[in-house]
Amino acid sequence: MIRKASRERRSRVVLALDLEDPDRGKLMQRSMDVLSAVAKHVCAVKLNRQLVLALGLWGGVDSIVNTIHEFSLPAIMDAKLNDVGHTNEFMARSYMDAGFDALIASPITGWEGGMDSVFKLAESRDKALIMLTYMSNPGAQTFYSMQASRGNESPKPMFETFIEMARQWKAYGLVVGATRPEIIRRSRELAGRDMAILSPGVGAQGGDPRAAIGAGSDYLIVGRAIYEASDPKKAASQYSELTL
Amino acid sequence: MIRKASRERRSRVVLALDLEDPDRGKLMQRSMDVLSAVAKHVCAVKLNRQLVLALGLWGGVDSIVNTIHEFSLPAIMDAKLNDVGHTNEFMARSYMDAGFDALIASPITGWEGGMDSVFKLAESRDKALIMLTYMSNPGAQTFYSMQASRGNESPKPMFETFIEMARQWKAYGLVVGATRPEIIRRSRELAGRDMAILSPGVGAQGGDPRAAIGAGSDYLIVGRAIYEASDPKKAASQYSELTL
Repeated sequence: MIRKASRERRSRVVLALDLEDPDRGKLMQRSMDVLSAVAKHVCAVKLNRQLVLALGLWGGVDSIVNTIHEFSLPAIMDAKLNDVGHTNEFMARSYMDAGFDALIASPITGWEGGMDSVFKLAESRDKALIMLTYMSNPGAQTFYSMQASRGNESPKPMFETFIEMARQWKAYGLVVGATRPEIIRRSRELAGRDMAILSPGVGAQGGDPRAAIGAGSDYLIVGRAIYEASDPKKAASQYSELTL
Repeated sequence: MIRKASRERRSRVVLALDLEDPDRGKLMQRSMDVLSAVAKHVCAVKLNRQLVLALGLWGGVDSIVNTIHEFSLPAIMDAKLNDVGHTNEFMARSYMDAGFDALIASPITGWEGGMDSVFKLAESRDKALIMLTYMSNPGAQTFYSMQASRGNESPKPMFETFIEMARQWKAYGLVVGATRPEIIRRSRELAGRDMAILSPGVGAQGGDPRAAIGAGSDYLIVGRAIYEASDPKKAASQYSELTL
């Protein structure tokens, strides 16, 4: 679905719709407005927990997901699932019920009693799971690049283990911050060609679109640089051109 | 607040109110019923994202938080915050605005552009932050016990680094699964006496209350073993006796 939309629209930009507004009605309206303005220039829409907390999943975010689908775009929930199995499964089921096509999850819970139930559910409902592999913020390095070893293995950077897990679990893709092209390059080497790499951190966080794509990202996640622009449509169009 | 309630009620049990019900009205009613039944036997109430997704934060979870406060109990949000700074801060602010006294966060984002904004906010609003240090599910071991090193440090188990971070950041407490008393013991050694240790995984997940308290936990987080019991009040009372 994302590949089709990307080819048709000649864009590798995933809109991160993370608007904030204390007024619920205005927030809903602004979200819909940005969506309509940029829909032709993006290949997917990612929602984060900003909208879920402010609008509620039901009677709020679910309507936005419907609108995303009306534009023939896939809806990705940036849930960063990181809880024990029964809670992860509840969250995953709720988001899938609300119409999301793909969820972002953290591999940190491990398989047993962590991600096992989520992968099972996703398979049964034909939904995609994307593993959070390397975050885009400066402090992420402390953790994601730690030299770490499982059992008797020799140490390697933490994110490399996450990619191994994602491959083993047959995840659809990886999230790797656009702020670190060298990490994207290494992730692509380890992930092979079939796994999608999505990269946030372009624009407001300083990531360079061309460098991220050049290093092996398939899709760039762009939020504030589009929805806070004076002309979101133009910003989305410009970012999509940068990714060709 | 939690210490006061714990002394007064002679209980170290934190109720995890993670009910599920497809009917929103029933879910609200059952949550209130369980809360009223067990309030005298617990020292705090922890909500997870089950209720947030099902009821919404506004016009749902916020009412439950009010009721928790009417019972003179603190409300802990098990948000497991794990996003970049501006999203973490938005989530933290939303939960604090809804009345929560403490939030659980994951140290994995690191400080800069991850936890920095959350700690700043918590300090300005006199709220407590609790760091997710070791999860209770079987698969958690893969990750939380990995031998990992920061920079030129010699390798040690991952959760030990998280405790160092929690101390450095001046967190109020740690979450360490009750299913692994030896990890609780080590966490207590490293955390010192001032930091609270909260342990989930008692009951449905198989953790032994006495072993967890004996190893150094201050509070046990109990969910299904209370709210799925035929008599939740009795179950809460029994668990609280086990923790004395």
